Amino acid sequence: MERRFDEELKHLKERLVGMAGMAEQSIGRAIKALVDRQAALAQAVIQDDVAINQLEVEIEDTCLGLLARYQPEAKDLRFIAMIFKIVNDLERVGDQAVNVSERTLDLLKEPLLKPLIDIPKMAVLAQQMLKDALDAFVNQDAELARAICRRDDEVDHLNDQVYHELLVYMTQDPKTITRAVDLILIGRHLERIADHATNIAEDVYYLVRGHTIKHRLAGE
Amino acid sequence: MERRFDEELKHLKERLVGMAGMAEQSIGRAIKALVDRQAALAQAVIQDDVAINQLEVEIEDTCLGLLARYQPEAKDLRFIAMIFKIVNDLERVGDQAVNVSERTLDLLKEPLLKPLIDIPKMAVLAQQMLKDALDAFVNQDAELARAICRRDDEVDHLNDQVYHELLVYMTQDPKTITRAVDLILIGRHLERIADHATNIAEDVYYLVRGHTIKHRLAGE
Repeated sequence: MERRFDEELKHLKERLVGMAGMAEQSIGRAIKALVDRQAALAQAVIQDDVAINQLEVEIEDTCLGLLARYQPEAKDLRFIAMIFKIVNDLERVGDQAVNVSERTLDLLKEPLLKPLIDIPKMAVLAQQMLKDALDAFVNQDAELARAICRRDDEVDHLNDQVYHELLVYMTQDPKTITRAVDLILIGRHLERIADHATNIAEDVYYLVRGHTIKHRLAGE
Repeated sequence: MERRFDEELKHLKERLVGMAGMAEQSIGRAIKALVDRQAALAQAVIQDDVAINQLEVEIEDTCLGLLARYQPEAKDLRFIAMIFKIVNDLERVGDQAVNVSERTLDLLKEPLLKPLIDIPKMAVLAQQMLKDALDAFVNQDAELARAICRRDDEVDHLNDQVYHELLVYMTQDPKTITRAVDLILIGRHLERIADHATNIAEDVYYLVRGHTIKHRLAGE
């Protein structure tokens, strides 16, 4: 019974990591579609989100099934509850990648406003934060988790920079307004992805250390 | 034991409803601050969010405690798992109200751009969706839950309207740009609140009916 449970838990963890990989890939493809102006790739991100959504439902069901059948205690219980939360964040990361792709399809109707520098940088940071958050979870690494929470500020800072730069464009040339607003919204979506990675990292910290850093680091 | 469990579950449900009331109130106050141009009220929304965040952590712990001590099965297990998810949505609703308030504080530095009509309308709709989603949960009302998911389109439609109207302002007068972008972002935050209410409603439907309408109604 014990061994069977461990195997199922291991399998669950693998599926979670697989889902995280899909979410990371969605971010990467959404940004590639934006930078390389590939409408078909943006469309693909939107279509492929169905698979991420499906995985959320499946993994949640698996979590509930494990709880019902094995009634795990303490650490295992919290571990499963944590997976239950992480899939929710991952599903929303997928949604944000879809939002980026929708804005990209809008943007591709008009010529390029400006070469994109900070937005791809934000995407790489957010993607790496998500990857590290999952690594922190898999390896139960509280220090990595804490470090991720701090990196959120960097993404926020880039987002502010993107925002202010685009305000200048709009003010100087009203013809840039719709594109600039689309890019501001894309910045927001990437910032939200970093927030989800931070949520996961906060939860990992809590799981490992038993006390929360949630809603606290912000004030540090 | 059974009776004790029922009592604790009832108490947990009451706290969840209390938390939902706080989240609803935050939306209401955030919009009142915007419409009546009250900076102090916007500040209060930001400060009071701490209490909502705290409740999330507490209710999650209570859920895990109940699972560990009583190892409930089937329906009760899913009910508690559902509360675990709902508090997460409510916490994010609180965050969105904070975001609205931050944009409001920005907006109050400049004169009123235009009388606000659609944004308060969106806020009322989102607030009501959230209230109904919690009612659907408490009363296990699948039909109410399904109806809420459909109302999400109305909020999305208003948000598009807000967006297009503000684009016109910006294009005609660059001096309105920062304010218009703030209002566009506020529209987005309200749309996100309606999405959280929809998430809750989808989960309630699943809990009651045993199959999901998630990621499906959108295409209906």
